[in-house]
Parts: sequence; C-alpha cells; structure tokens
Amino acid sequence: MSPPGPLSLNTVTVKERWGLADCIEGCARHGIPGISPWRDVLAAMGVEAAARRIRDAGLTVTGLCRGGMFPAAEATGRAAAIEDNRRAIAEAQALGAACLVMVCGGLPPGSKDLPGAREMVRDGLHAILAEARAAGVTLALEPLHPMTCADRSVLSTLGQALDLCDELGAGTGVALDVYHVWWDPALEREMSRAKGRIAAFHACDWLVPTTDLVFDRGMMGDGCIDIPRIRALAEAAGYRGFVEVELLSRRWWAEDPDEVLRLIKARHATAC
Amino acid sequence: MSPPGPLSLNTVTVKERWGLADCIEGCARHGIPGISPWRDVLAAMGVEAAARRIRDAGLTVTGLCRGGMFPAAEATGRAAAIEDNRRAIAEAQALGAACLVMVCGGLPPGSKDLPGAREMVRDGLHAILAEARAAGVTLALEPLHPMTCADRSVLSTLGQALDLCDELGAGTGVALDVYHVWWDPALEREMSRAKGRIAAFHACDWLVPTTDLVFDRGMMGDGCIDIPRIRALAEAAGYRGFVEVELLSRRWWAEDPDEVLRLIKARHATAC
Repeated sequence: MSPPGPLSLNTVTVKERWGLADCIEGCARHGIPGISPWRDVLAAMGVEAAARRIRDAGLTVTGLCRGGMFPAAEATGRAAAIEDNRRAIAEAQALGAACLVMVCGGLPPGSKDLPGAREMVRDGLHAILAEARAAGVTLALEPLHPMTCADRSVLSTLGQALDLCDELGAGTGVALDVYHVWWDPALEREMSRAKGRIAAFHACDWLVPTTDLVFDRGMMGDGCIDIPRIRALAEAAGYRGFVEVELLSRRWWAEDPDEVLRLIKARHATAC
Repeated sequence: MSPPGPLSLNTVTVKERWGLADCIEGCARHGIPGISPWRDVLAAMGVEAAARRIRDAGLTVTGLCRGGMFPAAEATGRAAAIEDNRRAIAEAQALGAACLVMVCGGLPPGSKDLPGAREMVRDGLHAILAEARAAGVTLALEPLHPMTCADRSVLSTLGQALDLCDELGAGTGVALDVYHVWWDPALEREMSRAKGRIAAFHACDWLVPTTDLVFDRGMMGDGCIDIPRIRALAEAAGYRGFVEVELLSRRWWAEDPDEVLRLIKARHATAC
C-alpha cells in the first residue's frame, strides 16, 4: 500500500518535558513537518507568537486540541463552555489550523442522563457553528473510546459523529484516532460514509494489557491495532493528510523527548 | 415503572471469600432466589453435587459463566476451545441453567487481525450450535465493553451480537450487562431488535473515575449508569427474567460477603 501521509507531532506526546517552543524546534530538528498544539502550551507562549514561530519553522498546523467539553449541570456552565469554544475557534484561525479537534465532553458530574448530555453536545455545536464557519475553522468531531463516555466524551463512535456532521453540515468533519475506533464492528461501514469528511487522522496503539483508561497509550507498533488497515480505510474515504501522533502515556512522558521523536519517526515509517 | 425482576447472585461477585457452597447458602440466607455460577467454583464442587444442592435450596440458575474464548492462533487451540465449550454446554444442561453466557474471546496473543478473530468466534459458535440446541441450552452472546476487545471479547456491541443471533438462529440470544452496553449510542435502536432474545440481564455500575479495565466495577447506584432506563428497554423487548448482579471489583471482594449481599439486596430495590 501507499506510504503514510506526512508526520505531525501532537504536543501532548511530550507534554511533561517540552513546552511549545521545544516542540517547534524539535519538529524542525527531526524533520517532522506537522504540529498540533494543545491549548495550554499555546496559551503559555501566546497565540500570535506561536503562529509566527510555527510559520517561521515551516510547520503545518494539523489541528488545535481541543474544543468541546459542552455538558455542564448548570446553564451558566454550558454558556461558559460555549464562550471558551469561541476563543478556541479564534485561536485555531490565528494558527491557520487544519481543524479544531472537538472532545465533546462526558456526563456532568453526578449525572446519569446520557441522552441529556448528548443533547448538550448537540446544542453546543449548533451554538458555535456559525462562528466556526465564518472563521473558516473545521470542527473536527472526535469520537472517543467508549471507556471515556462518563467523563470525557459522550460521542463514542464514528457513526455517531457522522450523524452529527450530517445534521450540522458545512464546517464540520471528524477527527479519526485509531485508538478510539479500532474496536468498532461498524468501522468499515461508517468509513464509507466518512468520504471527504475526515479532517484529521491520529495514531498511537492499544497495549495488551492496558493498565490505565487514559494515560497508557502505546507507541505505534507496540500494540494490537492494525494501523495500516485503518489508514487504508481513511484513504479510501479520500483522506490525504498528515498522520498525527498523539500519545498520552506516562511511560513515554518519562523518556527523553528527542528519543521519543526518533522512535515516532521510525514507527511512522514501519507501523503506520 | 415496574419493580425489577427477582435477584440473582453471580458467584464472581464474592469469589475471593466464598466457594459455591457458601454462595448457595448465602442466597438462601438472604432470600436471593437466583444464582449464576462460574465454572471454576462449579468444578470445585462437582457438577452433579452442585445441581442437587442448588435444586435443594430452591434456587433458579440464571446462567452459567462462561463459554466462548474461541480465538487462538493455532487450529489445535481453537479445537480445544470448542471442546471446552461442549463441556460447558453439558454443565449448563446438568444445572438446568437458563443460558450459557458466552464471552467470545479477544485477539490471539500478538495478533492484530480483528476481522480474523471475529471469524474465529463465528466459526466456534457454528461448531457448537447443534450441541447447544440438542441440550436445550441457550447460547447467550454477551457483548463486552470495547475496552476488552483486545483480550476478552471481539464481540463489542449489542448490534453485533444480534447480527450473530440472526445468522445462528434458534438456540441463541444475548446476555445484556448494563456495564458493557450503557454507553452505546445505538442502544435504543438495537434493543428494539432484541425482542424475545434477551436471555440474561446483568447489573452493576460504572464508577467515575474507573481505575481498572476489568476489576473496578461499581455497586448499583454508585456510578453513572441509569440502570432503570436500560431495564425498561429490556422489558420493552420482552424481558421478564432475573436481575443478575455480577461485580468484578477488588473493592467489594475485600468486604464481608454477607455485607455485600445485604447491600446488593438494598440496591436491587432502589437502584435497578
């Protein structure tokens, strides 16, 4: 099959040791052409300075992480989330990011009302859609693994994300992370529905066993996900963009980031 | 809404402190009318003795845990799994169990071939179906939470289980555990397809946060699952059976089983 698209570094992958300046320099030093910052490191540098330095380094911004987190028990909390998403849209626009990755949010604390939380996500997306369109920022809805449903994302499957895209229309797409979707028996069917709507492709691996529900993602090739198979499905759905590596991993956070980037480059070539 | 169906104790709930004899006596002592043994405690007592003691105690056997675990790298491993499932069918028949709960198995160690593992599950089920029918034992396909896909079950959703039931026909059904299906955006739609095919209903809760992928299930009412809502869906699909409590939990395993059974009885009345 074809070689994978160009590599992009999601800054969370080295978050314990590198700020955004280190990440930009690291990408340049290792010949990694894409970067996807999280908003905390972006805020630490300042958006305008970050946009300039990323541009000067010749990097493509494959996404901004992250918008979303809409559900809240109180209306004031939901309004605050929408305001924060508006700021995220402005930041994504300033960076020229390919998309704003949407981690939609879990149940409000103490709630058992899953249909209600999903409705809050819908409402939140509708509330920011016009602003995203005006800014030319694609809202990339990211289905998250069902094990995150309670506290991170009630948006759990690609099919559910595409249903929302169908409803929202222009200005929306999906962020496809192999970690979140690899298990899905409907994946092939839903990928054929995703045609032209994959805004980002994220890679890492599922370790066997996995010892933490959030911070035990594996390096590509170390786990059981057939990444090339899922990439082929994405390419059949028209995706021609970057392979963004997003590792939330206590193990890799403890390592020298230059070593991590070297390994990521190698695995990008052999395991993606 | 209607009160929940009668209570059944899955023996794994107290596995660290009670064998099968303790469980039978405990159910009788606490007025719990159903029991669902795992095969390890069954083997320790002996199937014939267990069948007699359970019958003498007046308990209903709501299921036998578990058959399945079909995928294996080698044909000899797959054949051994099928043989073991034949023994499980005979045990379920000897107990008069309402069903044999099928935990279908994950990827063979080291494999990334998810479609292949699913095919092994299909093949395994086809191989034992005639024997199950002849024994009058319903194979209750249990979709397991997607976080178990790599090492426990490539059967991940109710929809996928029902597709298999459609294919296999008479002698099959589904075991519905709220822990495994609560997050599923397709749950309502698929439950309407499940009409007359729910062979077991299992209850526990999803804790926030969850700290282990296998052994951190919560007591009903301690987590975020709207159990009555899912029970209502099951009843709308014709289910009139027991509510079986299956807690895999390091926390509850450490407690006095009599206290655990008292709490289960209370939560069965208030949180199911």
